[in-house]
Amino acid sequence: MKYPSGIKLNTAKNITYDNRGMNLEEDINITNRYYIDNNIAFIYKKPTPIQITKVEFSCNNAIIKEAYFKEPSTTDYNGLYKGKYIDFEAKETESKTSFPLKNIHKHQINHIKNIVNNNGIAFIIVRFNKLNKTFLLLGEDLIQFITNNDRKSIPLDFFNKKAYLIEEKYSPRVDYLKIIDLIYGGKNENE
Amino acid sequence: MKYPSGIKLNTAKNITYDNRGMNLEEDINITNRYYIDNNIAFIYKKPTPIQITKVEFSCNNAIIKEAYFKEPSTTDYNGLYKGKYIDFEAKETESKTSFPLKNIHKHQINHIKNIVNNNGIAFIIVRFNKLNKTFLLLGEDLIQFITNNDRKSIPLDFFNKKAYLIEEKYSPRVDYLKIIDLIYGGKNENE
Repeated sequence: MKYPSGIKLNTAKNITYDNRGMNLEEDINITNRYYIDNNIAFIYKKPTPIQITKVEFSCNNAIIKEAYFKEPSTTDYNGLYKGKYIDFEAKETESKTSFPLKNIHKHQINHIKNIVNNNGIAFIIVRFNKLNKTFLLLGEDLIQFITNNDRKSIPLDFFNKKAYLIEEKYSPRVDYLKIIDLIYGGKNENE
Repeated sequence: MKYPSGIKLNTAKNITYDNRGMNLEEDINITNRYYIDNNIAFIYKKPTPIQITKVEFSCNNAIIKEAYFKEPSTTDYNGLYKGKYIDFEAKETESKTSFPLKNIHKHQINHIKNIVNNNGIAFIIVRFNKLNKTFLLLGEDLIQFITNNDRKSIPLDFFNKKAYLIEEKYSPRVDYLKIIDLIYGGKNENE
């Protein structure tokens, strides 16, 4: 693994980095902020996992002087919605025809499988940038595809058939919980 | 905020750091590994949030050359157990008489409140090192204490009355889900 996409950096100096995922990530972060501010759901992006190898202290402040990006063992987002455990990964693709599975690590697939098998709600959000379409594909359908196919990508056709198109609007921008309500009935666990 | 406790570093060179929290954190990580390996629960420690300000690339590898520790906006651990959303923070104290509340950030208290109010299971695990006692205190009891008291620490007596003592054993080391079963009945949400 080289480095993850979507890392936010303070300075642009000497930095050229792949910004695939930035826009969808930003949209989702803003959407999650909206959910939190309106007491709807408490879903956060996990910090990027890094391995710290050198720290210096000056004036009681710690400065990390050497660290490396690590491969994530779980998905990027998780949290709570109406008493339910929510877990997902978000990815963009420039392809017009399929979503390359190399975008999701084996650990993450395995994690999604565990969540599905243990009554959590897991899914992936995939945006086809060139098509202006953002889909929510349930973990069970993702796992089913991977189990039954040797293909290295999921064709758009599979998304059209099995996934849910997320309407994009001003606020919340990527209202993925509307889809979750649609699928799971929108009831609170304790109601 | 200076730097969080419990940061794991690869090299010991030039590093002096506070290791409060290391042992409890390790015990919990091993316990969580046990839960995952035995398909019991999927609870992970979130990576330490950092602000990356400088990255260098050599031979296609990204090396973080400057970064700072950020204050966490949520608790350290969350995940899924029997269809339920689990969320907690773990802290050690050297005090024999009380747990200083400065150990938990305001953001985290607020987060715990949100989880409790939205039907998630939130708690703190507090180890009194000098007493060899590890308690699980439910989020609702923590919030109740903070709401009704101006004290800057929670007395041991409150833990003895309101919290649950976690039995420490060989494996799993800190079996906190046993307490959750005890309180919530151990039923799977979908049973």
